[in-house]
Amino acid sequence: MNNWIAVDWGTTNFRAFLMQGKHCIEQQSEGLGLLQVEPHRYQETLYQQLETWLKAGPLPIVMAGMVGSQQGWKEAPYVSAPCSFADLAQKAISLTTSWLSPVWIIPGVSCQSPYHQPDVMRGEEVQLAGLIALNAIENCRVILPGTHSKHVTISQGAITGYATYMTGELYSLLIERSILGKALPEQQESQSAFLSGVSMAQNGTPLSHLIFSARTRRLNKQIPEAHIADYLSGLMIGSEMAALTGCTHPLWCVGSPKLTQRYIQAAEYIGLKLNITNGDGCFIHGITHLYQHLSGEIA
Amino acid sequence: MNNWIAVDWGTTNFRAFLMQGKHCIEQQSEGLGLLQVEPHRYQETLYQQLETWLKAGPLPIVMAGMVGSQQGWKEAPYVSAPCSFADLAQKAISLTTSWLSPVWIIPGVSCQSPYHQPDVMRGEEVQLAGLIALNAIENCRVILPGTHSKHVTISQGAITGYATYMTGELYSLLIERSILGKALPEQQESQSAFLSGVSMAQNGTPLSHLIFSARTRRLNKQIPEAHIADYLSGLMIGSEMAALTGCTHPLWCVGSPKLTQRYIQAAEYIGLKLNITNGDGCFIHGITHLYQHLSGEIA
Repeated sequence: MNNWIAVDWGTTNFRAFLMQGKHCIEQQSEGLGLLQVEPHRYQETLYQQLETWLKAGPLPIVMAGMVGSQQGWKEAPYVSAPCSFADLAQKAISLTTSWLSPVWIIPGVSCQSPYHQPDVMRGEEVQLAGLIALNAIENCRVILPGTHSKHVTISQGAITGYATYMTGELYSLLIERSILGKALPEQQESQSAFLSGVSMAQNGTPLSHLIFSARTRRLNKQIPEAHIADYLSGLMIGSEMAALTGCTHPLWCVGSPKLTQRYIQAAEYIGLKLNITNGDGCFIHGITHLYQHLSGEIA
Repeated sequence: MNNWIAVDWGTTNFRAFLMQGKHCIEQQSEGLGLLQVEPHRYQETLYQQLETWLKAGPLPIVMAGMVGSQQGWKEAPYVSAPCSFADLAQKAISLTTSWLSPVWIIPGVSCQSPYHQPDVMRGEEVQLAGLIALNAIENCRVILPGTHSKHVTISQGAITGYATYMTGELYSLLIERSILGKALPEQQESQSAFLSGVSMAQNGTPLSHLIFSARTRRLNKQIPEAHIADYLSGLMIGSEMAALTGCTHPLWCVGSPKLTQRYIQAAEYIGLKLNITNGDGCFIHGITHLYQHLSGEIA
């Protein structure tokens, strides 16, 4: 298998991996997300970022993320769940750059969530492909924590449905912009405040009432002022995990070590067993798997 | 009954009413909330605001709101629910100004919410006193919508418990600062989008997943771009009202005409009968009622 390039191009970040067969031999990451680049300059920006790697010739490039959205470089329309990873490879769109690199853009996945809301993902499907391929999993529930956390159901190796939780974005807004974060002293880590938040979130209390306890428990000194951020984080992550109650599938959590650690603590506290794995590793493995489908090459 | 002055002094606004017995004969409102005034200048600011009314002599002043909080002028410690309105009058703190006006500050009310969270209110208790006195109500559930909506249970004319919902603050954060409000065109009113949001919120869907539908239903054009604000408003108000399911008490909503109209539309849509009444009217009647207790005067 020859060299090729994998790219994760999202709203806020541009990340690229120089691949030799299945192995990543070099990588780069920059805050050059789609919001930072003018739409007519996507191709030029891509070339500038990859120039060193392209000196040897026009390597194939496989891309995922918001680059394939309506506002991205070229739209790769959502594939509806249920869908297999072979479906995603098959529905990838292709183009050729001005410097003659063949490019594939992996489509995102749309679904009706278990709560009957339309839902969308772009980028996470590649991590899922990697998780499934790496661990030979057929059936499981996967949490991909972050700004917009996803809870995904995998059945017989295919994505059958999922739901997005705005956990990370809500947490940031509340701690930075709401009364809950107002005039807080410098925050310290506190596992007990975090777990206390997780615990409070397990009783079906409406979220917009529950979070107000980050104010009242501060006023009445049940949570020290320096631990409010971790308490609120526990409320938000705990609320998200409450949705897993009764799930009998094996549970996986795919993400950065920092985030997955929080989720595993929360899971243990409420009696759930969570397997964790690294998000970057899953991305690289997943995009390699998809590239094998696309190029017909088997590594 | 002689002249006296009622003051509602909160975090962002200062409102004062010149009273003749039970009747308001003049009023003023300014953005001179506690956040805009240095703590050592509360008394001076009060005098400047009321100067015209005080020319005839040092009228009695009855105050409510955050002015009685720890960060206010003088703390009127919370009274724990269950509590009657006579309890509130009895626990009011008094002081005399430098110009010899007798002042009472009405305390707020604390409770354990029905969801076992500590909760607090300051200012709303006066509106509740007015509502109860005006309508001769013994038992009811009262919604006081706003930045921090309160759902209050009144039993035998006393406040027995309540819960705060951060409906208004969450709505503002989401529409102004989150991905849900990003790059929206000028918004138009849409009752159908609002009611669609209310309806979506009645199925127990976790809030942090539900609100993401303001993005996905915009992407798939189920809700027009110009109606996203009203759809999100419906999701938030609908979620708050879902907490009333199964409530058998008469329901009241106390607030500004604009807000109570939204709540009555939402209530009708989900089959609840809501009585509405004006928040300012309740405040004036409530503080008069409390002043009668404080001064021993019966109008």
